[in-house]
Amino acid sequence: MVSRVIPVEDFDLVIFGGTGDLARRKILPGLFRRFLAGQMPKGARIIGAARSELDDAGYRKMVDEAIGEFGGVDAKRADLDAFLAQLHYITVDARGTDGWSELHDLIRFDLVNAFYFSVAPSLFGDLAERLHDYKIADDDSRIVVEKPFGRDLETAQALNNTLAQHFDETQIYRIDHYLGKETVQNLMAVRFGNLLFEPLWNNHYIDHIQITVAETVGVEGRGAYYDQAGAMRDMVQNHLMQLLCLIAMEAPSVFDADAVRDEKLKVIRALQEPAPHHIVRGQYDASKTAPGYREEAGNPQSHTESFIALRCEIANWRWAGVPFYLRTGKKLKARSSEITVVYKDIGHSIFPGDEKRHRNILRIQLQPNEGMELQVTIKEPGPGGMRLIDVPLDMTFAEALGPDAEDSTDAYERLIMDVIRGNQTLFMRGDEVEAAWRWTDPIIEGWQRRGDVPKLYDQGTTGPEDALMLLHREGRRWQGIKE
Amino acid sequence: MVSRVIPVEDFDLVIFGGTGDLARRKILPGLFRRFLAGQMPKGARIIGAARSELDDAGYRKMVDEAIGEFGGVDAKRADLDAFLAQLHYITVDARGTDGWSELHDLIRFDLVNAFYFSVAPSLFGDLAERLHDYKIADDDSRIVVEKPFGRDLETAQALNNTLAQHFDETQIYRIDHYLGKETVQNLMAVRFGNLLFEPLWNNHYIDHIQITVAETVGVEGRGAYYDQAGAMRDMVQNHLMQLLCLIAMEAPSVFDADAVRDEKLKVIRALQEPAPHHIVRGQYDASKTAPGYREEAGNPQSHTESFIALRCEIANWRWAGVPFYLRTGKKLKARSSEITVVYKDIGHSIFPGDEKRHRNILRIQLQPNEGMELQVTIKEPGPGGMRLIDVPLDMTFAEALGPDAEDSTDAYERLIMDVIRGNQTLFMRGDEVEAAWRWTDPIIEGWQRRGDVPKLYDQGTTGPEDALMLLHREGRRWQGIKE
Repeated sequence: MVSRVIPVEDFDLVIFGGTGDLARRKILPGLFRRFLAGQMPKGARIIGAARSELDDAGYRKMVDEAIGEFGGVDAKRADLDAFLAQLHYITVDARGTDGWSELHDLIRFDLVNAFYFSVAPSLFGDLAERLHDYKIADDDSRIVVEKPFGRDLETAQALNNTLAQHFDETQIYRIDHYLGKETVQNLMAVRFGNLLFEPLWNNHYIDHIQITVAETVGVEGRGAYYDQAGAMRDMVQNHLMQLLCLIAMEAPSVFDADAVRDEKLKVIRALQEPAPHHIVRGQYDASKTAPGYREEAGNPQSHTESFIALRCEIANWRWAGVPFYLRTGKKLKARSSEITVVYKDIGHSIFPGDEKRHRNILRIQLQPNEGMELQVTIKEPGPGGMRLIDVPLDMTFAEALGPDAEDSTDAYERLIMDVIRGNQTLFMRGDEVEAAWRWTDPIIEGWQRRGDVPKLYDQGTTGPEDALMLLHREGRRWQGIKE
Repeated sequence: MVSRVIPVEDFDLVIFGGTGDLARRKILPGLFRRFLAGQMPKGARIIGAARSELDDAGYRKMVDEAIGEFGGVDAKRADLDAFLAQLHYITVDARGTDGWSELHDLIRFDLVNAFYFSVAPSLFGDLAERLHDYKIADDDSRIVVEKPFGRDLETAQALNNTLAQHFDETQIYRIDHYLGKETVQNLMAVRFGNLLFEPLWNNHYIDHIQITVAETVGVEGRGAYYDQAGAMRDMVQNHLMQLLCLIAMEAPSVFDADAVRDEKLKVIRALQEPAPHHIVRGQYDASKTAPGYREEAGNPQSHTESFIALRCEIANWRWAGVPFYLRTGKKLKARSSEITVVYKDIGHSIFPGDEKRHRNILRIQLQPNEGMELQVTIKEPGPGGMRLIDVPLDMTFAEALGPDAEDSTDAYERLIMDVIRGNQTLFMRGDEVEAAWRWTDPIIEGWQRRGDVPKLYDQGTTGPEDALMLLHREGRRWQGIKE
């Protein structure tokens, strides 16, 4: 298979928070891998910007070390040096005046300019204002922002308004790295590139859909933030909601940013508020060897959920009556993100003695490995008469298509390249984010109103038993959480 | 994978024509392979019956040699001897009295009895009569007959009537070895075991269907017979028609003999007579090194077709408007039997720049190797943006499921075991055969009436150019004939 990487055009990418954790772990190593792949042109520059007093050489040294630690590649020195030579650094004060004129002078305004806000949301307004006041950003500039994008509808609207004062919606790239995954895009190709799937993708043929994002880690150093958020705000409102949208949306007329985002928005707006008994909240308990959630979060009275499972429905013609089961949590038995589309049983088996329930299942795995497989029923090969067995078909072909395909691009890399290319399709639009909060807020308010207390669950399990019961009482069961 | 071969019950199988070509090439080596697989019980006996003056020892020697030549297995002497010990021989005169009393005395009437008529159809009546007169066959006996089953409706009806005088339809097993193929049964499993296929298996979603049976051999020693038959009688009326039935039939309520055959019969009865311009007949021409059809058939004026391609339609709700293209011929470029189900193009591609026609295709290969694959469209793996590619999914899993699965049972073996088990599902019923002739006869009569002359075609090609044009003028093309 021939590699078909095409370099993007020259660009200046400014990373605010360029010395921070995300920059060192994800953004800069990702850019280096794109450099190695030949996608980052020689004329491109990356400009780290932060409060630390560093010069270019100091910054390059820091990035060199970060790539060594997080790059995941065994790079040649010459490649590293070539990449580092394209890096620059400027000390800026987001709330002051230091560095902004220098930044202005550094920018090449005839090229693509992008500004990555890898900083706390409370700084977004200051950064936007200064980019505007110092005439560093113009109408063609792009800004990239990370979650959390608000903690409810009100704060999200405030953030959107702040950004909107200086940037048009077409300039704002809200990253959800789940959308940058190879497999999420393959899901789109499979749904909309095959006559075999779209006509059956509805409540006549699909029994239910599951989305699981299971983590093995606890809240770790993020306890203070997390205890104010919980799984609903931290994971469901963004990642799980976005995956649900791509699974459930109508076919857009064209796979471009606004057509896709219009369809996703319609899904979020049609998403029903789950009944209280269709929500299971959990908190991981202390074990003999490890502290529980409350100790880790430093809040002995905390009612914040580190686990949530819920059942919701989408009120439209395509999905009415089809349950969507969402589940995410920390300290579970394995790290695994998976979407499962379970078709209905065949209505009737014509084969005598065949008593198993045969159902097609499309499994889309995002973590720890990416992959997609379709479970089909075939004749058990061999001379033993007509017996049916269910087997998985690989829908990704990573192995068959060679090493290029297996070296799946990291979601961050892909999305940063999309920023440079000006392709917003895989980024969240402001109204989507607000609609998601509009669905989330009343649910959280309900818990507060009712004084809802999460169930304790043992670490290393699949969460509280009530989450199993959520499906069992409807005659269904969760797909296993497996590495 | 655990082998799940279950022995059939004890039986006496009499092979009339037990010294003939079919017995030596197919039936006896097949039975030996079932013996090796543990499916033929120790108490079973095979009784060769023919005119030759042989004793058991002589017959065993002949079969020993036949297995050596045609068995396709590297058998141990001990296994061979154990199998041969279950063989017997009786000299009978089909039209006289010799041997019939001895045969009667040999049969164990408390076991399953089957009589394989591996002889010319002109002897069927004599054999049936004597089996009856000598009280060798009873109401539980089974008889097995081979094609050709008639050469038109009248002769087929006469044959059916002859057999019906002494045997009930439930006792008669008309073999078409195409139906015994592993892949044909897998096709049934896939069609009726998956919600993904049956709802789209109709004229809304399927563009057309192709059935090709290509041979590389000429008429060889069969010229005299073949020149009276031609490809229409020799191949289309039976093999291609049977495959078409299994592809096109409605779901039977149960996969048993009469339910399946009722559905096949409905297909044949709904099959429209093709218009004359939808039929292409061909005759292979002489090449520099090889004689042409007419020389091989010994008939310099012959108008018999060694190739036929035709387009027909099935007049029912499911298939109205969907062309079925059938094609078979001798001296073609490769030996290949394949059914191809071509879905319609996706109505609309949402992916910018994607200009290829994406269509799902189910390919069912019967010869030279068996297999089934489904062409699907996926995202081209890797970082190069959203590009779609079409890839084949293996629907047989022969490799994945291990050596047992790869050692696919020969169709003859499978069908003979079905005879012993009393399972008629994969055998043609008398009314099916007659209905097939009822469709065939007027077409052949039309050629004779119009003095239709086959087109000459070069050996080693895909047949006459007109056969390509049959699809080209409708914007379609044949799948390639490949080994």
